[in-house]
Amino acid sequence: MVTIPKTQKAVVFETNGGPLIYKDIAVPEPKPNEILINVKYSGVCHTDLHAWKGDWPLATKLPLVGGHEGAGVVVKVGSNVTGWELGDYAGIKWLNGSCLSCEFCQTTNEPNCAQADLSGYTHDGSFQQYATADAVQAARIPKGTDLAQIAPILCAGVTVYKALKTANAKPGQWVAVSGAGGGLGSLAIQYAKAMGLRVVAIDGGDEKGEFVKSLGAEAYVDFTKSKDIVADVVAATNGGAHAAINVSVSEKAIAQSVDYVRAVGTVVLVGLPAGAKVVAPVFDAVVKSISIKGSYVGNRADTAEAIDFFTRGLIKCPIKIVTLSELPEVYELMEQGKIVGRYVLDNSK
Amino acid sequence: MVTIPKTQKAVVFETNGGPLIYKDIAVPEPKPNEILINVKYSGVCHTDLHAWKGDWPLATKLPLVGGHEGAGVVVKVGSNVTGWELGDYAGIKWLNGSCLSCEFCQTTNEPNCAQADLSGYTHDGSFQQYATADAVQAARIPKGTDLAQIAPILCAGVTVYKALKTANAKPGQWVAVSGAGGGLGSLAIQYAKAMGLRVVAIDGGDEKGEFVKSLGAEAYVDFTKSKDIVADVVAATNGGAHAAINVSVSEKAIAQSVDYVRAVGTVVLVGLPAGAKVVAPVFDAVVKSISIKGSYVGNRADTAEAIDFFTRGLIKCPIKIVTLSELPEVYELMEQGKIVGRYVLDNSK
Amino acid sequence: MVTIPKTQKAVVFETNGGPLIYKDIAVPEPKPNEILINVKYSGVCHTDLHAWKGDWPLATKLPLVGGHEGAGVVVKVGSNVTGWELGDYAGIKWLNGSCLSCEFCQTTNEPNCAQADLSGYTHDGSFQQYATADAVQAARIPKGTDLAQIAPILCAGVTVYKALKTANAKPGQWVAVSGAGGGLGSLAIQYAKAMGLRVVAIDGGDEKGEFVKSLGAEAYVDFTKSKDIVADVVAATNGGAHAAINVSVSEKAIAQSVDYVRAVGTVVLVGLPAGAKVVAPVFDAVVKSISIKGSYVGNRADTAEAIDFFTRGLIKCPIKIVTLSELPEVYELMEQGKIVGRYVLDNSK
Amino acid sequence: MVTIPKTQKAVVFETNGGPLIYKDIAVPEPKPNEILINVKYSGVCHTDLHAWKGDWPLATKLPLVGGHEGAGVVVKVGSNVTGWELGDYAGIKWLNGSCLSCEFCQTTNEPNCAQADLSGYTHDGSFQQYATADAVQAARIPKGTDLAQIAPILCAGVTVYKALKTANAKPGQWVAVSGAGGGLGSLAIQYAKAMGLRVVAIDGGDEKGEFVKSLGAEAYVDFTKSKDIVADVVAATNGGAHAAINVSVSEKAIAQSVDYVRAVGTVVLVGLPAGAKVVAPVFDAVVKSISIKGSYVGNRADTAEAIDFFTRGLIKCPIKIVTLSELPEVYELMEQGKIVGRYVLDNSK
Repeated sequence: MVTIPKTQKAVVFETNGGPLIYKDIAVPEPKPNEILINVKYSGVCHTDLHAWKGDWPLATKLPLVGGHEGAGVVVKVGSNVTGWELGDYAGIKWLNGSCLSCEFCQTTNEPNCAQADLSGYTHDGSFQQYATADAVQAARIPKGTDLAQIAPILCAGVTVYKALKTANAKPGQWVAVSGAGGGLGSLAIQYAKAMGLRVVAIDGGDEKGEFVKSLGAEAYVDFTKSKDIVADVVAATNGGAHAAINVSVSEKAIAQSVDYVRAVGTVVLVGLPAGAKVVAPVFDAVVKSISIKGSYVGNRADTAEAIDFFTRGLIKCPIKIVTLSELPEVYELMEQGKIVGRYVLDNSK
Repeated sequence: MVTIPKTQKAVVFETNGGPLIYKDIAVPEPKPNEILINVKYSGVCHTDLHAWKGDWPLATKLPLVGGHEGAGVVVKVGSNVTGWELGDYAGIKWLNGSCLSCEFCQTTNEPNCAQADLSGYTHDGSFQQYATADAVQAARIPKGTDLAQIAPILCAGVTVYKALKTANAKPGQWVAVSGAGGGLGSLAIQYAKAMGLRVVAIDGGDEKGEFVKSLGAEAYVDFTKSKDIVADVVAATNGGAHAAINVSVSEKAIAQSVDYVRAVGTVVLVGLPAGAKVVAPVFDAVVKSISIKGSYVGNRADTAEAIDFFTRGLIKCPIKIVTLSELPEVYELMEQGKIVGRYVLDNSK
Repeated sequence: MVTIPKTQKAVVFETNGGPLIYKDIAVPEPKPNEILINVKYSGVCHTDLHAWKGDWPLATKLPLVGGHEGAGVVVKVGSNVTGWELGDYAGIKWLNGSCLSCEFCQTTNEPNCAQADLSGYTHDGSFQQYATADAVQAARIPKGTDLAQIAPILCAGVTVYKALKTANAKPGQWVAVSGAGGGLGSLAIQYAKAMGLRVVAIDGGDEKGEFVKSLGAEAYVDFTKSKDIVADVVAATNGGAHAAINVSVSEKAIAQSVDYVRAVGTVVLVGLPAGAKVVAPVFDAVVKSISIKGSYVGNRADTAEAIDFFTRGLIKCPIKIVTLSELPEVYELMEQGKIVGRYVLDNSK
Repeated sequence: MVTIPKTQKAVVFETNGGPLIYKDIAVPEPKPNEILINVKYSGVCHTDLHAWKGDWPLATKLPLVGGHEGAGVVVKVGSNVTGWELGDYAGIKWLNGSCLSCEFCQTTNEPNCAQADLSGYTHDGSFQQYATADAVQAARIPKGTDLAQIAPILCAGVTVYKALKTANAKPGQWVAVSGAGGGLGSLAIQYAKAMGLRVVAIDGGDEKGEFVKSLGAEAYVDFTKSKDIVADVVAATNGGAHAAINVSVSEKAIAQSVDYVRAVGTVVLVGLPAGAKVVAPVFDAVVKSISIKGSYVGNRADTAEAIDFFTRGLIKCPIKIVTLSELPEVYELMEQGKIVGRYVLDNSK
């Protein structure tokens, strides 16, 4: 029998951009449709920084416990929940819950639900030891999985996997990953490879080049050396990439991707830069018949599939584990652009 | 037995923007893979004006006979042609021929073939009495069809039909047509209706409003009266159009279409404005998960299908018939923006 | 304020094939995830007869209140329900509820959920005045809709609409409907037409022929007169139907449909005959590259769409209204094959 | 400059089932749309045996040179051919040519063209030193490729690759291959793996089991040991295969595949057994919503893709090389069921 304490440790902020306080708060009670998860580890994502700062057009809940990459163990189930047992491994992801009834929920597009409830944004998230999640949306994690390792898969992994599905490239085709050496990019390379795709990686420097090749990229375009990135991608892919995954949110990189995809190719937008625009000449878009697609976070099926690739051992994510109480320092490094790989919090301290 | 003369009437120009001369030229000889068509009628398209002026990034053949909406009768078949008989009705369309072997030709994307041969652009077109066309690409027109009426279908009709297919909307869904009262727009409405789609038409003025409703549009947004076009389209479609067909090439109209499509909707770019750009906020594109797609001209199957809808009587195209020799006056009207409906040339004089 | 009685009228049976008793039973209490619907009208479907007789490989709940085409008004909502208001119009359909979490529920295939709860089969259905339905799966019916008319749409309409979607035919293509003059067939013709498809109807007799043509069928093959049904369908469709909807469950009719679809065409199986088999020569299936697909009931989106076509006035379903207490007589007529059109019960008496 | 002789060696038969004569015949002249290929190596396929025996419902040309897996070098191009140079590597495949204009040719379904011209069946094939092929349909093989190794890819490889595409399974899903240890099956396993699919192989015996696992199969069901093949496949795939590739043409194996695919799964028929039937219970097909699809040979794009996987080194095909003159002995072994792997003829002797 699991004993659930009355209070727990959490990182809370009262105002956007205000102090991030590591303190004791009450353990939440799951609603009839929710489960309560003892969060063991939680990844830290750029989105969490945006939520804290409040610089997106969507208001956050306040006070707020952030975090949406939480991996843990089910310790309580709501009165109306079926299909979850105490002790099951469960994941908290960006989409905490949705209405299940609207046209988007009906057609696997639940992240587009107008009533989407977002972990660490409109619903207290994974930067606490006990968090609630809608039983339908909570991610199912096979028992025995390393909960620290899988944490970043719950948002970063699912997001790039979804972007690759959105790219609609077939096995054997080329996908360009711009920003390939970063946290999202390195996951994108590995998922692409597992899906039978060929990867041309775009990033800067020799070290990144060796890194992306070690993950499976077949070609590397180094923007610190290339005189013509578009031409180099076209050459590497024998005519242009079939699809481009814009993990990098630079407007220039996005514009280049419109140029280096081949005819009938697909440009996928996946990051959420505040204020950036995608710009494409209509003439070229028409004559080349390309598609530019926005790809948001994954749905339940995308999540299950992304986790399955991970648990089959096909995806590695280099993480650095620090304690929950150290979250403010992680945000500081993130703002300074000093993060390499993915930080994961040990929620036990 | 058909007698083919040695010479024929044609409208020719020697330099881009130079004089359009109605004169006698030699009747061309079909190559082994071509048919020779006695062109009875030819539509006049905005693209023909661009070809004459030479203001697109792609060079035209010179001297050139323009025209790519020609409907006529087969009078000769090349030595290697099968499947065409003398007396068959045939159509000349924008894509005169393609390599048939490249990855685009292999996958129904022959308009994207790098070796595409374009009627009235890189291959003498339909502004002459006898024109050659690749036997594989030439459009098949059922005998008995009114050749004047069907001429504009060969480019304008096929193009909007292809755009609607690219929109990937399902029967019962809403498609917005911006520029709905014009030549392309009025065809788009009718094709959309025949495909089971619901149309919200966008254009200016009461007359246009009545016209588009007579064609089957269920809702009309009048940009001369609307205070908020985006809001009005969203209201008319109960949440946003599932797809938008941008027949209008105004940058502002295109930007609005990005806003009024609902989540997971599709914006289709179909015109070829020189210099215009599509601009979309990355954040919105991602969170709404929309697609922006360029749609070029139709392939062989699109052409056959567009003709089939026409010959079933589901598509009407109001035309004004003038003579081939009057082509320069048609261009003049076109430049002045004074054309309503579609001009069709009677090539016999 | 709605007053909900403690007891209500219902038709109940204690054993499969046993007496159908019209009597007073308790009004059920909705679970936290359910709504309580005051059922005004309920269609009667062949499946209800199977449920009563118990001749399918799946056991029914006992005692059982049958019925799965119920249209009514929401009178109570469970504690955990959002998105439903008292007074909303709601429909009870075959799929009463599903787990929402399995791979099938995640991917819009909720009718294939292993834990599917079936109205009038494993869950008391619409042959009572007050019935419960899962709030997520219950059909949303626009206020003002004629509840008697829409009742058969909730199963029969959705089922044929789903079959047409499964057929994957494009607007302008031919779909053959075998058994076109019956209840399901006549709905299939109308949905096909609304979806831009062309219909060749197959049934017997002149009266059926006139009926199906009045609904929009463009061609009719009369099996009482045709010497070669396959040849006649191929001729009517200029090469074979692109898809076949086998509303008729005759093995011979199904085998014919394999023959009269054209290459790369689709044969859809939609009825649920006990014991019948589909048989096709492997050689022909391969060389013609056809697909044979089973289509079960619709999901939430299919249901919403089928209702939308109905409420737009595109679908008419001739019904005969009798009282709930007369259900046994309806079953009798059904067993005798004497039913023309659809019977709908007035649940108020 | 290549010198083309007047005569060449070939294996010819005058009547179906009659003597297979290795003799000198005239070198054929390419038509304007054809290329002439100096065939270096040719695979031998079961279909060649059928062509010789004449036991299919379609008549062969007579006298006939069989063979449709020929790999060689272009030595002459027809007067109307573009895109081929002397010295290019080219492949002869089952579909020698098609009309390019019918609805099937227009939509990438050229193998379904009613005027399909078939190598080694209606058009003299690859069992000669110089063979003609339609320039559009001939397979393009990168220079430097091992022509003996690639020969079997041109039919066997393309066919299983096409079947896998027809299966419509996504990376990460399970595909069952029945007859996995044979020539087609072993290619199917490798293509499936390259496409990101997981394979459960079905065949008999320990040796086959080790072989299929060495190729990448993750699970093996041995029909010589299994007490319940359906249950074993369902267990190995955690709920049923998402798709089944029936390389084995046994009726029993096909019927089992209907049972062991999971709901909404796909059964692919790929072999061409004379007389065999696929039989499925309608009730199960509907409730499980499965698809049964015939998959014929690949089109031009399938061929190019299958070759690309091969030239990337992802597909190995164990071959045994004998001389062209030894073809009768190969047929004998084939009839006796004694062939393991694929025989390839050295056409030089």
